Amino acid sequence: MEKQMLQKLDKMFNPNIIAIIGASNSIQKWGGFLTVHMLKGKFIGKIYPVNPREKQILGMPAYRSILDIPEPIDLGIIAVPADKVLPAIEEAGKKGVPGLVVVTSGFSETGEDGKSLEKQMVEIAKRFGIRIIGPNTMGITSTYVSLYATGAAVFPPRGHISFISQSGNLGTQMLYWAEREKIGIDQFFGTGNEADISAFELLEYLAERETTRVILLYLEGIDDGRKLFNVLKCVTRKKPVLVLKAGRTKAGARAALSHTGAIAGKAEVFEAALKQAGCIIVKNPSDLLDIAIAFSYLPLPKGNRIGVCTLGGGWGVVASDLLNEAGFELPPLDPQTIARFDKILPPYWSRSNPVDLVGQVDEDIFNTSLHTLLETDYIDALIMMGVFGVSEFVIRVASASLGVAPDVTENEFKQIEDYANSTEHKFREETLAAMEKFKKPVIGVLLSSTANLVHEVDGKTLILFPTPERAIKALQALYQYQQYLSRQKT
Amino acid sequence: MEKQMLQKLDKMFNPNIIAIIGASNSIQKWGGFLTVHMLKGKFIGKIYPVNPREKQILGMPAYRSILDIPEPIDLGIIAVPADKVLPAIEEAGKKGVPGLVVVTSGFSETGEDGKSLEKQMVEIAKRFGIRIIGPNTMGITSTYVSLYATGAAVFPPRGHISFISQSGNLGTQMLYWAEREKIGIDQFFGTGNEADISAFELLEYLAERETTRVILLYLEGIDDGRKLFNVLKCVTRKKPVLVLKAGRTKAGARAALSHTGAIAGKAEVFEAALKQAGCIIVKNPSDLLDIAIAFSYLPLPKGNRIGVCTLGGGWGVVASDLLNEAGFELPPLDPQTIARFDKILPPYWSRSNPVDLVGQVDEDIFNTSLHTLLETDYIDALIMMGVFGVSEFVIRVASASLGVAPDVTENEFKQIEDYANSTEHKFREETLAAMEKFKKPVIGVLLSSTANLVHEVDGKTLILFPTPERAIKALQALYQYQQYLSRQKT
Repeated sequence: MEKQMLQKLDKMFNPNIIAIIGASNSIQKWGGFLTVHMLKGKFIGKIYPVNPREKQILGMPAYRSILDIPEPIDLGIIAVPADKVLPAIEEAGKKGVPGLVVVTSGFSETGEDGKSLEKQMVEIAKRFGIRIIGPNTMGITSTYVSLYATGAAVFPPRGHISFISQSGNLGTQMLYWAEREKIGIDQFFGTGNEADISAFELLEYLAERETTRVILLYLEGIDDGRKLFNVLKCVTRKKPVLVLKAGRTKAGARAALSHTGAIAGKAEVFEAALKQAGCIIVKNPSDLLDIAIAFSYLPLPKGNRIGVCTLGGGWGVVASDLLNEAGFELPPLDPQTIARFDKILPPYWSRSNPVDLVGQVDEDIFNTSLHTLLETDYIDALIMMGVFGVSEFVIRVASASLGVAPDVTENEFKQIEDYANSTEHKFREETLAAMEKFKKPVIGVLLSSTANLVHEVDGKTLILFPTPERAIKALQALYQYQQYLSRQKT
Repeated sequence: MEKQMLQKLDKMFNPNIIAIIGASNSIQKWGGFLTVHMLKGKFIGKIYPVNPREKQILGMPAYRSILDIPEPIDLGIIAVPADKVLPAIEEAGKKGVPGLVVVTSGFSETGEDGKSLEKQMVEIAKRFGIRIIGPNTMGITSTYVSLYATGAAVFPPRGHISFISQSGNLGTQMLYWAEREKIGIDQFFGTGNEADISAFELLEYLAERETTRVILLYLEGIDDGRKLFNVLKCVTRKKPVLVLKAGRTKAGARAALSHTGAIAGKAEVFEAALKQAGCIIVKNPSDLLDIAIAFSYLPLPKGNRIGVCTLGGGWGVVASDLLNEAGFELPPLDPQTIARFDKILPPYWSRSNPVDLVGQVDEDIFNTSLHTLLETDYIDALIMMGVFGVSEFVIRVASASLGVAPDVTENEFKQIEDYANSTEHKFREETLAAMEKFKKPVIGVLLSSTANLVHEVDGKTLILFPTPERAIKALQALYQYQQYLSRQKT
């Protein structure tokens, strides 16, 4: 993509001044709720609502035409009915707007007349050099300018994941999960009918975007497979791309045809080509976020040799099975490492990998385990289960004992609670520091009441998974990408 | 299992009067925190703490010996150090206690001396006709008598899932998830070293237990595979048994050996035998609860033909793929059904299965869709996505508009909120009634901020999954069990 076009898209997706053509006071209408979401999201720039029949829109002065707005516009959002879209684009062109998001539906998705209307729309836009997202799009999100311009009221926090989605509904639902689980998002694009800007171009744009560390792509159909793979090959050398290709099966392809009109090719061929291009293939929507957040904050493992440390044996067995089945190895411990653990664990400890801490809840044991395993040259990544979050269990027992056990007074309970919380906090700091020092990922599996993935520790971000299977799936993707990158270098 | 033995186990696991031998005031000790958990769990019967060195234990009068207790004991819990276990069992025998839970460790899991001690323990117990869970067990839970006698402070609600676990740590962690997600549990057994009562016998006992609708089994190793399969064959004809067999892989088997000393056989052979015996094989611990809760409350699908109804097309495509990949079919709609949907949906609706409601949030559309699809004779189960929980989105938009949009006053917001909530509630009632009427499972995939599986609706239980993949995995297990049952009948 040329530098000039990159700059244009960059302005459009990180706007300072936005006009909403068809803004409305009614929250039954797209021009109403979309504007409400932008206000609620506290867009950092200026919003100019355009509506010839109103004096005010949602408390802001309304403009009769975009041409009446006294400053240049970075992005226009079009929410007028389909039959008024062409003149609106013509006016935006005259105003010199570089880019538009057209949420209006009733275009190529509805049949021949709509197709012809869409063609005319693109012709007018081309004439003025306007770039368009849509039509029939769920909208866009750009968190670093607090732009939440989507049909659904979803406000994920800032982060490093960007998401290109050929389904608006699926896309915004995932933004909602991201909001709920505090998973940081950079930008989101509901691509709509892709009359002008395609998923390809968005990939090229995001490849260059500094704040985006990982790209998610929900695909139903593409016109030009060869072009997609060429673009992907370039992008995946710069950052990981996770692809959920829907319409893989007979039933899925039929559903895709009736949804976006996408015609699915041979699923196996397509999948093989995606892998060849370095993509991470994902089948469940929820896995997209799990894996993306791991890419956002964890270093890549250099190899497939995993150390496992657990507070209880059963979890170690389960994790060993899942790791082995995912292609990982659990190397045995060397005598020196065993000797170090001999000093801190009871005589009946496992003396092997997984290291079973046999329920010892102790700050020094946690720290020594972490460092001892990461220091070895035969362990590439570490999974710690039942260590993070154990403070909550300690507090639960103490809290149950309060007023019952004679040695647990209010004062002693407070001491236990403080100790447990500070131990937990210190171990989280220690883990982040160790990851930085050893450049190896440490994935915690959390024993606690929260199922959140993302945990802030003194301004840094620690990722903890609620189950071993989710941790291992994410680790598998990190390793797969690392392997791809090292193949590219040789 | 003989009736007399059943009655004995039944008394032991649903006790009215419990003695805790080795009860303690210190929450650092098993005899302390286990007793605290029983008090916190509000055991419905009577607790007698036995400790010769204390006058009171956690506010209750202490007894010097179990022989001093003035009534018969249904269950004894032994938490004294290993070297004091034999005399404690001798005394329990003299007292006429039918059953014991021995949480003390230091037996066969520690080596030859421990093995010999364990053998002696069993001999004494046999002499008195005492049955034993353990030693080295995490404890037991029996929710219908509010008995929470486990080493971890976990208090799941009452329900129909019983769980036999050869890992105490994994077992109680899952009880914690159950507590967090309001998943109803009947009984839990950490089997410990299985010196006396084995997983076999617990299976036979639970097969007869009325409140148990589904049995979970976490297995690391078994001595007598043939016996296990014979027992399982009988049990699975009565109720579904979900098995997580750990130690399937090389790494897992090595970890199991060092954890419980279990020697794994050939994984494939074992798995084939489990399937042959009608078990549902599960690989991830979290899947155990997902599938079990589905068995607790959903009717079994008679066939593999699934109707899908969605609020947005992308989810329909994703679900179609996952369903097809899981062996399900999505039959096309007949003209009569299409005609019924034509009357309620906009002209551009999908006219196929999945039925895409194209974002129409309307009580009548929801109800008509539900009934129209369930009434057909070619749909065995229904998945509804983005219908349940949509009220929350409606309220979110209205709430964002409050004080911003001129047509959303406090009063109007309240109206929107009430309408959304009551529509949601009525549709949930409608769904439960339709399931009962048509005897077909309806699985909702929830669009909302809660990830809970279990939802109470006027005293009944509705299961809603947070993602399509989890819903489909559960549906797959229901169908697999239905197929097994119908093969048994022919």
